[in-house]
Amino acid sequence: MDYQLSHEGYMRTALELARAAMGQTGLNPIVGCVLVKEGRIVGLGSHLKRGTAHAEVHALRMAGAEAEGSTAYVTLEPCSHYGKTPPCADQLIEAGVKQVYVACEDPNPLVAGQGIQKLRDRGIEVHVGLLQNEAEQLNEKFFKFIRTGMPFVTLKTAMTLDGKVASKQGDSKWISNEEARQRVHVLRHQHQGIMVGAATVLADDPLLTARLESGAVQPTRIIVDSRLRIPLTAKVIQDRTAPTVILTSAAADAAAEERLAACGVKVYRCGTGPKVDLQEAMRKLAELEISSVLLEGGGTLNGAMLEAELIDKMVIFMAPKIIGGVSAPSIFQMEGKALMNEAYTLSSIHYEQIGDNICIIGYPHYGA
Amino acid sequence: MDYQLSHEGYMRTALELARAAMGQTGLNPIVGCVLVKEGRIVGLGSHLKRGTAHAEVHALRMAGAEAEGSTAYVTLEPCSHYGKTPPCADQLIEAGVKQVYVACEDPNPLVAGQGIQKLRDRGIEVHVGLLQNEAEQLNEKFFKFIRTGMPFVTLKTAMTLDGKVASKQGDSKWISNEEARQRVHVLRHQHQGIMVGAATVLADDPLLTARLESGAVQPTRIIVDSRLRIPLTAKVIQDRTAPTVILTSAAADAAAEERLAACGVKVYRCGTGPKVDLQEAMRKLAELEISSVLLEGGGTLNGAMLEAELIDKMVIFMAPKIIGGVSAPSIFQMEGKALMNEAYTLSSIHYEQIGDNICIIGYPHYGA
Amino acid sequence: MDYQLSHEGYMRTALELARAAMGQTGLNPIVGCVLVKEGRIVGLGSHLKRGTAHAEVHALRMAGAEAEGSTAYVTLEPCSHYGKTPPCADQLIEAGVKQVYVACEDPNPLVAGQGIQKLRDRGIEVHVGLLQNEAEQLNEKFFKFIRTGMPFVTLKTAMTLDGKVASKQGDSKWISNEEARQRVHVLRHQHQGIMVGAATVLADDPLLTARLESGAVQPTRIIVDSRLRIPLTAKVIQDRTAPTVILTSAAADAAAEERLAACGVKVYRCGTGPKVDLQEAMRKLAELEISSVLLEGGGTLNGAMLEAELIDKMVIFMAPKIIGGVSAPSIFQMEGKALMNEAYTLSSIHYEQIGDNICIIGYPHYGA
Amino acid sequence: MDYQLSHEGYMRTALELARAAMGQTGLNPIVGCVLVKEGRIVGLGSHLKRGTAHAEVHALRMAGAEAEGSTAYVTLEPCSHYGKTPPCADQLIEAGVKQVYVACEDPNPLVAGQGIQKLRDRGIEVHVGLLQNEAEQLNEKFFKFIRTGMPFVTLKTAMTLDGKVASKQGDSKWISNEEARQRVHVLRHQHQGIMVGAATVLADDPLLTARLESGAVQPTRIIVDSRLRIPLTAKVIQDRTAPTVILTSAAADAAAEERLAACGVKVYRCGTGPKVDLQEAMRKLAELEISSVLLEGGGTLNGAMLEAELIDKMVIFMAPKIIGGVSAPSIFQMEGKALMNEAYTLSSIHYEQIGDNICIIGYPHYGA
Ligand SMILES: [Zn+2]
Ligand SMILES: [Zn+2]
Ligand SMILES: [Zn+2]
Ligand SMILES: [Zn+2]
Repeated sequence: MDYQLSHEGYMRTALELARAAMGQTGLNPIVGCVLVKEGRIVGLGSHLKRGTAHAEVHALRMAGAEAEGSTAYVTLEPCSHYGKTPPCADQLIEAGVKQVYVACEDPNPLVAGQGIQKLRDRGIEVHVGLLQNEAEQLNEKFFKFIRTGMPFVTLKTAMTLDGKVASKQGDSKWISNEEARQRVHVLRHQHQGIMVGAATVLADDPLLTARLESGAVQPTRIIVDSRLRIPLTAKVIQDRTAPTVILTSAAADAAAEERLAACGVKVYRCGTGPKVDLQEAMRKLAELEISSVLLEGGGTLNGAMLEAELIDKMVIFMAPKIIGGVSAPSIFQMEGKALMNEAYTLSSIHYEQIGDNICIIGYPHYGA
Repeated sequence: MDYQLSHEGYMRTALELARAAMGQTGLNPIVGCVLVKEGRIVGLGSHLKRGTAHAEVHALRMAGAEAEGSTAYVTLEPCSHYGKTPPCADQLIEAGVKQVYVACEDPNPLVAGQGIQKLRDRGIEVHVGLLQNEAEQLNEKFFKFIRTGMPFVTLKTAMTLDGKVASKQGDSKWISNEEARQRVHVLRHQHQGIMVGAATVLADDPLLTARLESGAVQPTRIIVDSRLRIPLTAKVIQDRTAPTVILTSAAADAAAEERLAACGVKVYRCGTGPKVDLQEAMRKLAELEISSVLLEGGGTLNGAMLEAELIDKMVIFMAPKIIGGVSAPSIFQMEGKALMNEAYTLSSIHYEQIGDNICIIGYPHYGA
Repeated sequence: MDYQLSHEGYMRTALELARAAMGQTGLNPIVGCVLVKEGRIVGLGSHLKRGTAHAEVHALRMAGAEAEGSTAYVTLEPCSHYGKTPPCADQLIEAGVKQVYVACEDPNPLVAGQGIQKLRDRGIEVHVGLLQNEAEQLNEKFFKFIRTGMPFVTLKTAMTLDGKVASKQGDSKWISNEEARQRVHVLRHQHQGIMVGAATVLADDPLLTARLESGAVQPTRIIVDSRLRIPLTAKVIQDRTAPTVILTSAAADAAAEERLAACGVKVYRCGTGPKVDLQEAMRKLAELEISSVLLEGGGTLNGAMLEAELIDKMVIFMAPKIIGGVSAPSIFQMEGKALMNEAYTLSSIHYEQIGDNICIIGYPHYGA
Repeated sequence: MDYQLSHEGYMRTALELARAAMGQTGLNPIVGCVLVKEGRIVGLGSHLKRGTAHAEVHALRMAGAEAEGSTAYVTLEPCSHYGKTPPCADQLIEAGVKQVYVACEDPNPLVAGQGIQKLRDRGIEVHVGLLQNEAEQLNEKFFKFIRTGMPFVTLKTAMTLDGKVASKQGDSKWISNEEARQRVHVLRHQHQGIMVGAATVLADDPLLTARLESGAVQPTRIIVDSRLRIPLTAKVIQDRTAPTVILTSAAADAAAEERLAACGVKVYRCGTGPKVDLQEAMRKLAELEISSVLLEGGGTLNGAMLEAELIDKMVIFMAPKIIGGVSAPSIFQMEGKALMNEAYTLSSIHYEQIGDNICIIGYPHYGA
């Protein structure tokens, strides 16, 4: 690491700066920036929070007059539009940066190459694509959201070896080991919303907060409750650590909605049927500027989300336990496919052993 | 490897000789023997088949007169009883071996330290316990059988990520990848019996043979069929590559039994009820001198075997696929436990990635 | 990495920020700082250049009002004395930081626990020692310099398998492979001075600059030349990329000194004898505020430096070549030890394969 | 390993059988053989000693009647000539083996494809080349000897980081660590001769035997002594564990030769000059049927052997120590090359860390 004083090495540092802020920029991308002049880092920046300075701005401020004549390494194309801050492309130009390495273009149609063009128009040498794959993977949530207008959904679940998420009596304490459970809090911190079904609230009355040694960014709690069955005494209603949003159906009781609203909980009706229309629900979350959701559902909600092709990524902690029970809920309670070659498959599969558990990470593939 | 000219190094060679014969000694243990004299290997042996020469005998024959004054490295205590061959302990004594390293004692009550004692009584220096764990693990099937009189049962299955062994329509072709399926043939070679339920025969009409590049030892096909439902046209009845045994219940139709018997198939009634008594069935297999069984059941048979606490080891190939279907069979179709902390747990868990599949190996623990 | 949202994880990020600036802070330590508030990084800083803002200051500026109530992770104790900037301890207090994690105390007697004390006196919770070893290793040059007042000397050399640094004719082009030679430029960037003997200048006329893809911080060129033999036409005299300093003896010719001085080269006489007194020479470099030296000597200078016990670390690139030649210079041309058990030994030895070369890193041990 | 029931898997077992006998077959190759019939190993063999049964014979004996119809896996082409035993090709034919996998052809002109041809002539299916590289590497000593009529010479030495094999006073106890020194005894076991110069005998009076936990095959001690300087009291003369051979020059004193001969030591005059002609010496060793030599020389003998291009392989243990001393002997005391690009280079270089030592293994390349 310490001998990577190369273009690639500086871009890696910029990627590390971006990664450090994962989970705290809301629906903004995470971005890192390094300014180098004559072999000397003169500025370091990371976009830390939506509505505050972009990575380039932090780096330029740190560099001051030294920015002039420097080379910038940015993990995402500098912005070119006037948002809450003046465009970074303009600021790089103004500061006299003479060369820019960009890991990947901004998929945002408001930027989409215009930032790069602006720099080039002013005679700045721009190189695009250094460590592009790493950069895009780092911002996978943002890329999905910008490209489709829909939140990036990560399914997280703990299951037994036989694919169950609870016993036939609904007991699920605890399936995975301590270290695996600790990682869940990191995942919560890294998503803007955390979604469960009413059944989970009724069964476990969870708090649904991110609990980390140094605190955490709290995701919005999202409860899918078609009939507004959850009680006002539920922790997700009473606790004010994070906002709670309820997604319900057209058929839900109006009085129940009013009672929930009185507790400060927002209730949204999704679709026209007796059940929550999940496509609609995701669009609603996007409207609420929730660009990433950690799905911690029971089997039924997981299954419905998968059948609706709304899950983008899976992080599954499997414990070497067998609980059995035909009626015990599977990780996906759903109609299912008729033939094995029609099964959903995960690509870019990655296995990691965590003590005696194994963490399975992959991306479901929804066919043509 | 090539610099392990030490006691441990020679014992490792003996273990490799034993391992080479895994699957071909029937209910006998696999055993390797190395004879070393003045730093020179003078004999190598492995027990290759029940009823033929023991490892020590092969090694002594290879050594001839050079055995005198040599040191023997044996992976299992030399036998002391007159069986199909004269006791190895006597033969080592007669040959003039002066020192013996034994990896582990023979759990067989007919031997149980007597082989070692016999050697010591004749002034031979005996060292017990070198690489004992490796040696016992290598013979785990034999140790179980000798200690309990019951066959060692290895569950082998391919399942989806959601714990299913088939789709709701019963389709299971193919869950695991090519390499995983190849390993199954090795497992078949390494067990004396291969067991499935009638449902599997009816659904897939499998051949249930071991198919390897250089041929394979064929395990006895064992069909658990409480009501003798499988047709005479089934491949396991028609094909003569390996013997087939049917385990049925007291309630099975006598005429059906006769028809099967006429095809050369042995039928055994296990227990007194309408279903096969699995404990009884395993005892019957032991009587038939089947000391190891590869269970390739569907979910129902797997579940019944687990609930009967008859599974000793699991080798599970998990593919990154999701098939869903509440009625699709899980790896274990059984009543199940009420609470998560009552779940069956696997110990000595081992994960190995095979392409995009993962192989999970462990030993179920049945509590106090 | 991305799930290390723990005290240790944030300190690792701070260490990475420090490491990014290795080589560009002159005789100052490298330091990184991360400010975290409610699970959110609010400030990142690294000390980038002597005389400019400390890591804490950069991080506080980035955080602005968010610093209040935050936790600071600093790789070195915050300073407490008024230097070129107000003390960081005071600034952390003023900003309202409520908790500080410090990897290691500042060995500088001007700080030495006083920064920590100051924080504690103001009721700030201070934890010392998190990742202390990593932090001290990162600043090994600074720690040596502060504790002893002498520069940290790293010997870098390329040698053949038979320990030669050149052929009997003095040819040394090239011993190590391309990748190894690239690393040398990183090492030059990371040291304040680069030292060779007059013989090397006369034989190879090297430029002695750091040449990296994105530029490099140029170390001062230090020539040990007891008799001022190097010609005015030497590249190290003519080239102005970096300053050149000549260390000579009391016996050197005054006219030669004047001619060199006229070229802008500083000449220092070290000791009273006919040869450069190396202890004295190192003290002189320390006076010149050169706290780290990369020794790229020939065998004679390397040997003299080792016998003077002035080498702190070795980075040796060994190529699988044999050049032979009794008169070909060895890596250390010196009197040598009489007995093998008196040999200099390297501790914390580390081997790394670089293509077909091997890099050997270790710390010589000078006995009691 | 245990699932390699494939052609390659059986050949690997055969290679392991060969490797087990490394060092004990004199100038014969090491060979392993596995016989497989219907997926069952029926015979295992390894050539254990020159003049005794070949690998195929051992395997055929173990198999008995089961050899008929089996497949043979042999690491070297079966022999076809009548030597001390009837040709293995004939015996395989007679036993009814139906298929043969051969890892590599026998380079011996007495065999050279004739064994394979003989098998094919009798309708046996022969496959050549499975794991050929591994097989040839395993027999590298034999291949060299057969192809060139000269012994394979492995240089083994322990050196300091600065390439010295002793201090200026000649002290070399101990350079390498305990584990490295243990490996030397394995190397001695694996070579037929162990060669040093008279200087080493005079300085250290070594025993030059292989000392291993379970005994070792003792190599012939070879002393290169141009002037017959070594005393009759030297351990290599007095000790009778292994034979000792002295290679001397035409100029050596006849009386000294007689005294040595009287002690049972063979003395050979190599060449016509005042120094031992090393080419001639190697030819003499070949005549004495010494096909492999471990060179444990001091720097002078090592250097002379390298300059004579007689070293085939190097195994160098480097300790992280620096002894210095211009007159301290380097690993190769020789005239040396003038230019770096003329240096001897090692190919197939392999580094292995052994505690704090590093073992360097490679093959010197002697140019066009
Ligand atoms: Zn921007
Ligand atoms: Zn026996
Ligand atoms: Zn400070
Ligand atoms: Zn032969």
